[in-house]
Amino acid sequence: MIAAALVLVMTPGVAFFYGGMVKAKSVISMMMMSFGAMGLIGVLWVLYGYSLSFGSGDDWLIPHVLLNPFHNLGLVNFLGIDGSGFMATSDVANTNALAFAGFQATFAIITVALISGAIADRAKFGPWLVFAGVWATLVYFPVASWVFNFTVGSDGAMTDGGWSVYLLGVNDFAGGTAVHINAGAAGLALALVLGKRVGFKKGLSKPHNVPLTLLGAALLWFGWFGFNAGSAAAVTTTSAIAWVNTLAAPAAGILGWLIIERIRDGKPTSIGAASGAVAGLVAITPACNILTPGWAIVLGILTGAVCALAVNLKFRLGFDDSLDVVGIHLVGGLIGTLYIGIFGTGIGLIDSGRFNQLGAQAIGAFAVMIYSFVLAYAIGWVIEKTMGFRVRNEDEIAGVDTVVHGEEGYTLVSD
Amino acid sequence: MIAAALVLVMTPGVAFFYGGMVKAKSVISMMMMSFGAMGLIGVLWVLYGYSLSFGSGDDWLIPHVLLNPFHNLGLVNFLGIDGSGFMATSDVANTNALAFAGFQATFAIITVALISGAIADRAKFGPWLVFAGVWATLVYFPVASWVFNFTVGSDGAMTDGGWSVYLLGVNDFAGGTAVHINAGAAGLALALVLGKRVGFKKGLSKPHNVPLTLLGAALLWFGWFGFNAGSAAAVTTTSAIAWVNTLAAPAAGILGWLIIERIRDGKPTSIGAASGAVAGLVAITPACNILTPGWAIVLGILTGAVCALAVNLKFRLGFDDSLDVVGIHLVGGLIGTLYIGIFGTGIGLIDSGRFNQLGAQAIGAFAVMIYSFVLAYAIGWVIEKTMGFRVRNEDEIAGVDTVVHGEEGYTLVSD
Amino acid sequence: MIAAALVLVMTPGVAFFYGGMVKAKSVISMMMMSFGAMGLIGVLWVLYGYSLSFGSGDDWLIPHVLLNPFHNLGLVNFLGIDGSGFMATSDVANTNALAFAGFQATFAIITVALISGAIADRAKFGPWLVFAGVWATLVYFPVASWVFNFTVGSDGAMTDGGWSVYLLGVNDFAGGTAVHINAGAAGLALALVLGKRVGFKKGLSKPHNVPLTLLGAALLWFGWFGFNAGSAAAVTTTSAIAWVNTLAAPAAGILGWLIIERIRDGKPTSIGAASGAVAGLVAITPACNILTPGWAIVLGILTGAVCALAVNLKFRLGFDDSLDVVGIHLVGGLIGTLYIGIFGTGIGLIDSGRFNQLGAQAIGAFAVMIYSFVLAYAIGWVIEKTMGFRVRNEDEIAGVDTVVHGEEGYTLVSD
Repeated sequence: MIAAALVLVMTPGVAFFYGGMVKAKSVISMMMMSFGAMGLIGVLWVLYGYSLSFGSGDDWLIPHVLLNPFHNLGLVNFLGIDGSGFMATSDVANTNALAFAGFQATFAIITVALISGAIADRAKFGPWLVFAGVWATLVYFPVASWVFNFTVGSDGAMTDGGWSVYLLGVNDFAGGTAVHINAGAAGLALALVLGKRVGFKKGLSKPHNVPLTLLGAALLWFGWFGFNAGSAAAVTTTSAIAWVNTLAAPAAGILGWLIIERIRDGKPTSIGAASGAVAGLVAITPACNILTPGWAIVLGILTGAVCALAVNLKFRLGFDDSLDVVGIHLVGGLIGTLYIGIFGTGIGLIDSGRFNQLGAQAIGAFAVMIYSFVLAYAIGWVIEKTMGFRVRNEDEIAGVDTVVHGEEGYTLVSD
Repeated sequence: MIAAALVLVMTPGVAFFYGGMVKAKSVISMMMMSFGAMGLIGVLWVLYGYSLSFGSGDDWLIPHVLLNPFHNLGLVNFLGIDGSGFMATSDVANTNALAFAGFQATFAIITVALISGAIADRAKFGPWLVFAGVWATLVYFPVASWVFNFTVGSDGAMTDGGWSVYLLGVNDFAGGTAVHINAGAAGLALALVLGKRVGFKKGLSKPHNVPLTLLGAALLWFGWFGFNAGSAAAVTTTSAIAWVNTLAAPAAGILGWLIIERIRDGKPTSIGAASGAVAGLVAITPACNILTPGWAIVLGILTGAVCALAVNLKFRLGFDDSLDVVGIHLVGGLIGTLYIGIFGTGIGLIDSGRFNQLGAQAIGAFAVMIYSFVLAYAIGWVIEKTMGFRVRNEDEIAGVDTVVHGEEGYTLVSD
Repeated sequence: MIAAALVLVMTPGVAFFYGGMVKAKSVISMMMMSFGAMGLIGVLWVLYGYSLSFGSGDDWLIPHVLLNPFHNLGLVNFLGIDGSGFMATSDVANTNALAFAGFQATFAIITVALISGAIADRAKFGPWLVFAGVWATLVYFPVASWVFNFTVGSDGAMTDGGWSVYLLGVNDFAGGTAVHINAGAAGLALALVLGKRVGFKKGLSKPHNVPLTLLGAALLWFGWFGFNAGSAAAVTTTSAIAWVNTLAAPAAGILGWLIIERIRDGKPTSIGAASGAVAGLVAITPACNILTPGWAIVLGILTGAVCALAVNLKFRLGFDDSLDVVGIHLVGGLIGTLYIGIFGTGIGLIDSGRFNQLGAQAIGAFAVMIYSFVLAYAIGWVIEKTMGFRVRNEDEIAGVDTVVHGEEGYTLVSD
C-alpha cells in the first residue's frame, strides 16, 4: 500500500514534468489533464475498471472476463447491497485483493496521464476527459488484463498473468508494454488526430519553468520505486534487484542523454538530464526483475542515448508529439521490452542461446502498440469530429489556460 | 513510521497549497505559519503534548489525564533522568508507543497548520506562534485525547479510544472531528477575530502560483494515505479499504467540484480540482474504514459539490475565511462525520435501520466544533487585544512578507 | 527499500533547497550539480563503489578492502558472467545485501550533492562531474567503509561497523561524520579552490525562489526519516526513537535559528526556518539512536542557534561558501557528533562520568574532516589547473545557466 501511494504521486509528477515544459500560458491545461485523469480514472477503476482487468481470477482472455464483469469491486457489491461484499470478510486474500486493486488503480491513472504530453497547448479539457474514459475502458483495462491479471488463491498467494505473460511468456514486470508502449502509441495517435501546433518547429516549446519539470522528474523517479519494487508484492530478492535496477538504469539514462547532447550540441541540459532519467526508468520497467545491475546500466545508457536522438524524429517525420511521449515512452518501452529477449538472466539470447524470448517480447510489444494506436486514433477521431478535440487557432495563441479554464498559472506582480 | 513520514509531509503540503493561493507578497508569511507550526508544535508535543493526549492509557476523560501528565515522553523522563525511561526497555509495547507518539505528532502539527488559511495576508508571525501553542495545549491535545486515546497493552496491542469514541461510539477513524472540524471551527473564530482583509470581495485572492497550489494538493493527497491507511496501525483489510477509499473519495471530489464549476461558471478550474480533491479527502477521513468504495465515491462527489457551493458563503455572510478553511475543512468534516451515521457499513441508518449512530456522530462533531470555536475565539481575542494579531492596514497593502519577515518570495530578474 | 526511496528523494531536495537560494540565472547550474551526481554516482556505486565500501564483510580497513574489490556487485559478476552472481540465489542474506546496497547508494549520492552548495554560481559542469567521481572514489567510498561497513551473516543479520565504529567505538548512527562532516569539509576545500564570486559580500545571494527552497527543505526532512529511521534496518525501539528524534531536533532547530534572527535582525525569515530545520537534521543524524527526545530538543535548539551565527563566519574569514555547506553541515555535523560524547544515553559524560566517548567522537570527526578536506582540496586544485573548474568572470555575470547549459530557468512571459 505504501508502494501504491508512491505510484499515485507519479501522476502529479507527470503533471509537473509536462507542466514545466510547456509555455506559461498552457501550464494549467497541461496539469489539469493529469489531475482530471486522477479524478475520472480513479472513479472508473472502482466502478468497473478493476473488474474488467482482474474480473475473473482464473481467466486471461477478454471474453471470459466479460462474462463476470461485476466481480470483486464491481457494481453489484460496490455499495455492499448483497451483504456479501469485500467488507464482510477480513481474510488475507481479501486484504491482498483490495491492496492490489488500489496499487493497480495508480497504474491505470498514470498511463492515461502520460498520453496528455502528446497534445500539449491545444487540447480541450472536456473532450480530453471523454477520451480518457473511453480509452481506459476499451484499451487500458483490457491490456492490463493481458499483462497483469492474477489468480488470488484462498491463501492470498497470486499466480499467473494475462495471456501475454501466461501464454506467450512475455516478461513485462511492471508495465513496459501495458503502461509505456500503450501510452506512447496512444500519444502518437492523438498527435496525428489533433495535428501540429501553430508555428510547429524545433525549439518552439521552450520550457517555461525548468525547476517544475525537474520536480516532476524527481517525483516520477521516487514513485517509480513503488512502481517497480512494489510490483514484486513482497520483499524478496526480486524486489531488491528491482530496486537497485530502478536506481542504476535511470542514473545511466541521465549519462546517456547528456553524452549525446554534449557531442551534438556542446551543452548538456537539465531538460536532457530529466528526460534521460525518465527514459531509463521507462526502459527498466519491464526488465527490472530479470537484469543484473550491470546490464541495467548498459540498458540505461543505451536508452538515454537512443531516446535523445529519437525525440528529434518528430521534426523529420512531421508529427507534433509535443512533449515526446513517443520518443521517450514508446521508444524507451520498446527498447526495454526487447532488450530482455537478449540480455535477460536465464531467458535472453545470450544466456539461453535461443531466440524464443526475443520473439515473445516482440509479439507482446507490437500487439499492445498496434491495439492501442488503432483504438486511440479511432476514439480521438470520433471526438474531434463530434465534440471537437482541439481548440481554435486563435485560442491556442491566446493560451488555453484562460480560454478553457479561466485561470492564469502565475500572477507574480501583486497589486 | 513510514505512514508518519507521509503525514509529516502534509504540513509542507498545506504550506504550498495555501502559499500558491495568496498574493505573491504574502507567500512567505503563509508558508511560515505552517513551518513555524512544525517547529513549535513538534517541540511541544514531545515536551507535554503526547502526555496530555495519551497520558494515561486506561483513562478517557481529561481530568484523569491531568493526574498523570508526565507519563511516557513527559518531562520527568524526557531527559532520561530517572533511568527508567523509554530508552531502558526495548519491548514491543515500547516501540509501538514511541512510533505511535511520532505518528500522532504529525496530526497535531497539521491540524494547527490548517487553521492558518483563514487568516492569510494579514497575520503577524509571533502572535500566530503564541496562538498555535496555546490552542494546541488547550484544544488540540485534549480533543485528540477524546478521539484517539488508546490503551497499549503489554503485548503492544492497542484498544479503545477517548470518550467520544469509547463512550459515545463515534466513528472517527482518522480525525474528521479531531482534525478537520477542529481546525475549521478555529479558522472561523480567527477569521472573525482578525476581521476582513482590506478590500475584501469575491475574486480578491487570485492565486499567484497555481503549480505551487497543485503541488501542495499532491503532497496532501500523498500524505493522506499515511493519515488514513496508517491509522489502522497494521496492514489489514481495514487499512486496505481505507487505502482504496482514500483514492476513490478525493477522485470523486475532483469530479463533484468541477461539475459545479462547469454548470455555474462554464469553466472547470485547476484550483477547483485541487480543492475538490482536498474536500473529498477531508470527508473520507472519519469514514474510510466503514464505507464501501461505492459509498465513498458518492460521498466524494457530494462533498466536492457541496463545498464548491459552500466556499461562496463567506461573501454572503461577510467573514473573510481567506482560503476556505471553513468551506472545506469544517463543512467537509461535518459531511463525512454525519454521512457515516447514514451509510456506514453495519452501523448506519440504511444497514441498521436505527438513528443511534447518526446521533452519536452529530454529538461528537458538534462537541468538537463548539469547544474549538469558543476557545479559539477567546485565545485569538486576547492575543489581538494584547500583542495585536493583525498587521496594520498599510503593512497589509505593502505585503506582510517584507514587513514581517524582511523577505520577498521571488526575485526572478537577476542583476 | 522504502527508506532508500525516501533517501533518494533527498538529492532532488538538495537541488531545490540550493536552487531556490541562488540567483535566477544560476538555478539550472545549481540543480544540475545534484542531478548530475545522481547519474554519475548512481552508476559508479553499482560498478565499484559498493565493493570499495562494503567489499569484504569481515574487514574494516581500506587495504583489506582493496584485496577484494570485486566482491558482491563488483565488475566480475555485475554482468552475471560467472553464473554465480547475486541473481543465482534468493536467500535472506542476499536480499538484505542488495537492499542494503541500494540504501547506501543514496547516501553516497547525497553526500556528493551536498558539496555543490559551496561553489554556487561559478562552477563548470564537466569539471564538477570529474570532481564528483574522483572524490567519491578516493574519499566517500573509503570513509563510508570506516563508518558503515557491516558483516552480513548467513542468516542475514548485520553486525559491526568500519574501523571508526568498530575500533574507536564512535557512535555515528546515520552519517554525522561520513556524510555531513565529510561533505562540509570538502565544500570548504572547493570554496577555497574556486575563490570568491564576483562582488562577494553579505547579502549578495538573495534567494530567487523561496518556495522552491522550502520545498527542498521539506523533501529533505521527509527523506531524512528514511535516512535516520531506515539506518536501523528493522522496526525496533531504535528506529522508533530515531524517528521521534528526527522530528524533535529539526523542529527545535527551526526555533533555535528563528530566535537568533529575531534577536539579531528583528525579523525571523523563512530561509532561516528552512536552514534551522536542516541544521537540526544534520546534528541529530549521528545521534538519533542514542539521545532521549528531551536531549534531542536541546541539541536542535543549540545547533539551530550556533549555525545561525556560524553562517556569518565566511564574511569575516573571507571564504565564499556560497550556500553555507560549512556553516550548516560541517558545524552541525561536529556539534551532533561531539554532543553524543556528553549527552548520549549510557555512553556520554553525564551518564557514564567518563570522557572516553567524547574522545572517540572527536577523533572520528576530525579524522574524516581532515582526510576529506585535504583530498578535496588536492582534487579540486588539479582540476582547476588542468580543465579549469571555474567559469570566466564575464560568464559568471552573464549567468552560468546560459553559458554552461544553454538554458534559462524561467520563461514566464509567453509569446
